[in-house]
Amino acid sequence: MGLIVQKYGGTSVGSVERIHRVAARALAAQAEGHQVVVIVSAMAGETNRLLGLAEQVSQGAPSGAGIIPDQRELDVIAATGEQVSSALLALAIHARGGRAKSLLGHQLKIRTDSAYTKARILGIEADAVRRALADGAVAVVAGFQGVDDDGNITTLGRGGSDTSAVAVAAAVGASVCEIYTDVDGVYTTDPNVCPSARKIERISYEEMLELASVGAKVLQIRSVELAMKYSVPIHVRSSFSDVPGTWVTGEDRAGRTGAATGSLESIVVTGVACDKNDARVMLVSVEDRPGVVARIFGDLARENISVDMIIQNAAVDAAGRTDVTFTVNKDDLPRVRPVMEALLEKVSAQGLRYDESVAKVSIVGLGMRSHAGVAARMFELLAAEGINIQAISTSEIKVSCLCDAKYAELAVRALHDGFGLGNAPGAKVESHGG
Amino acid sequence: MGLIVQKYGGTSVGSVERIHRVAARALAAQAEGHQVVVIVSAMAGETNRLLGLAEQVSQGAPSGAGIIPDQRELDVIAATGEQVSSALLALAIHARGGRAKSLLGHQLKIRTDSAYTKARILGIEADAVRRALADGAVAVVAGFQGVDDDGNITTLGRGGSDTSAVAVAAAVGASVCEIYTDVDGVYTTDPNVCPSARKIERISYEEMLELASVGAKVLQIRSVELAMKYSVPIHVRSSFSDVPGTWVTGEDRAGRTGAATGSLESIVVTGVACDKNDARVMLVSVEDRPGVVARIFGDLARENISVDMIIQNAAVDAAGRTDVTFTVNKDDLPRVRPVMEALLEKVSAQGLRYDESVAKVSIVGLGMRSHAGVAARMFELLAAEGINIQAISTSEIKVSCLCDAKYAELAVRALHDGFGLGNAPGAKVESHGG
Repeated sequence: MGLIVQKYGGTSVGSVERIHRVAARALAAQAEGHQVVVIVSAMAGETNRLLGLAEQVSQGAPSGAGIIPDQRELDVIAATGEQVSSALLALAIHARGGRAKSLLGHQLKIRTDSAYTKARILGIEADAVRRALADGAVAVVAGFQGVDDDGNITTLGRGGSDTSAVAVAAAVGASVCEIYTDVDGVYTTDPNVCPSARKIERISYEEMLELASVGAKVLQIRSVELAMKYSVPIHVRSSFSDVPGTWVTGEDRAGRTGAATGSLESIVVTGVACDKNDARVMLVSVEDRPGVVARIFGDLARENISVDMIIQNAAVDAAGRTDVTFTVNKDDLPRVRPVMEALLEKVSAQGLRYDESVAKVSIVGLGMRSHAGVAARMFELLAAEGINIQAISTSEIKVSCLCDAKYAELAVRALHDGFGLGNAPGAKVESHGG
Repeated sequence: MGLIVQKYGGTSVGSVERIHRVAARALAAQAEGHQVVVIVSAMAGETNRLLGLAEQVSQGAPSGAGIIPDQRELDVIAATGEQVSSALLALAIHARGGRAKSLLGHQLKIRTDSAYTKARILGIEADAVRRALADGAVAVVAGFQGVDDDGNITTLGRGGSDTSAVAVAAAVGASVCEIYTDVDGVYTTDPNVCPSARKIERISYEEMLELASVGAKVLQIRSVELAMKYSVPIHVRSSFSDVPGTWVTGEDRAGRTGAATGSLESIVVTGVACDKNDARVMLVSVEDRPGVVARIFGDLARENISVDMIIQNAAVDAAGRTDVTFTVNKDDLPRVRPVMEALLEKVSAQGLRYDESVAKVSIVGLGMRSHAGVAARMFELLAAEGINIQAISTSEIKVSCLCDAKYAELAVRALHDGFGLGNAPGAKVESHGG
């Protein structure tokens, strides 16, 4: 008994038949005595279709040049995907004899700033949800969308429906935010890369954040941040089965009891992730004098470019020069290049190198805080496979190594099994949707 | 120089290329010094696609029975069609270097009652339009949709974008409401039926209302009513050419000067229309006593069924019995039948007959008010073709005759040419889109 929020992704509402399956699940939860709020994404493929249409119109200028579409109008278009799926789900619930009411971002309302296509939630006025629930209805909320103070429609960025769901769950004081997806939980690593990957029963917000930030794609990072801030328990599970998935909760509740095998490794590392979206940039032979590095990263920051890993060689050559290496998101490279070229002379460097075939492999685990030697063990495991480490970055509960992209999968398997994350021999590997 | 409202139907915005043509036209009007508000329909076929999806979901109940979809949710779904086309048009205008801003029903806002799928406009708060215009932008308004006082999305019924356009034109004090469509104006009759049909230069609101109510489909009736109420001149024209179309204006401005040929007929009748959507219902041999007829039409009214033509034979037979005949819209027949069967005994009638193969042929013209004999001339023209008249109804500026549906086209041609509406011999017949 309680108030639960369920969020269904695009695949889960991708057809009339699947929408009915979602309706049945929401009504089943209601029949168990819960008040139910459902957040839906657009039907799979719909957002791309809509934005494709916008792109065509914007490229269709008579000059043939095309321009970047206005982001306010893109949001007006994109928001229709969730508008349609929320009303369709309400209709499906009606068709099954239930009560339901669709609620859009501007009706709910989900107040955001005006950063179109990537707006942030400022607050939620959930009276309309409470009224629908009091009326015995399932409140079906269009995810991904909000409204700014001037009544303009905004969207929260790709995967934003997760954030909508957690925000609504926090606003109405839900006991759980269930995120239904096409996989049945969060895995120790990508099962497509590592067959011995297994589903994690419970994981802390902090670990989930680190995993999400280094390449695990099950949950949008912002949704986990929000869940942590408001202590909303998340349950990531499959919309195609009733099997329990992965609980993402506060650290105190995330203590893993069943998985303890007594070995160091099985405790300290929770998951292994891999991210191939970074590119490595190297400024060759830079003068090693005060202020040079600050200038480089200052210029990048002014262009709003996020730098991930940074390595400055300790070794300075006879001429007092060194190399500066860092990584950025590949998507940012077109903006990085002009900044670097302008810097080349200013810091009197001798050259620029870019490498897009790199991968960042990371291990994440709360246990690292109290266990020394985890990073060293990681380097050993990679060295044993002959994998050269190009850069390293660490946080309290994460170690990331940059390596040649061709070794990415090998590195993931070596770390996953080296830290004892795999199934016991002979254990059944659960199927995984992708 | 002034403020003009342009409305484009679904065919006019049916493709990326056509949306750009509309953008070009709006910018051309702006370049001439006008402030421009554009109202758009959904891209052709989109509303049907969306409602089809809703129908599928509602019919997809596990019982297989299907239910009537909730109309609130239908409106949420249907409104997305105009939401997308308005933002696409704004993007197209941007792509051509212009300024534009899309405005939805709840942003504008277009306040309506809560009669989902057929809401009526209560008022328009056009500040957002004025702000966009003051900013030098084309205000692109999503047609067909509004918002009720509780923030629910409503739609105005099929063809509702015409009504949106006229209402917005009235609210902002536009000098003209241009209705762009796939035909180049209002014709004296359907050119597909009568090759000698010609475009009308000017027509009064009253005549347009009568023509629309008897089958001419160029404008939604409510939009003409609204234009008449607020004296908004309407210019119906083709979105595919620059040829002037038909002006629908107040009677004083609609005086036709050019068309006068000196003959009676060319003055009194403005257009001929034909409507095949009616069915004839006959209650056979009803007792001719006070209150019987009132009972019949009272029962129909209670079911909210509109009755069009009514004929009660003056002749009463020896047993004091007579027949009662009337017409209703064919779509209402499923609701009419049970009412009539219940009445059969109550008024002790001897039988019921339905005839769906009837057509209502009408002539419309302001001049009828001051010319006697127009109806008689109509009956003569039909009689000359051997067409039997089953029922007659008249208004101040209209005469309608019900006849066998198989004579419909013949009747239209006979009346059109008999009242001198055709082109002069040898005159070029303008092409007509459908």
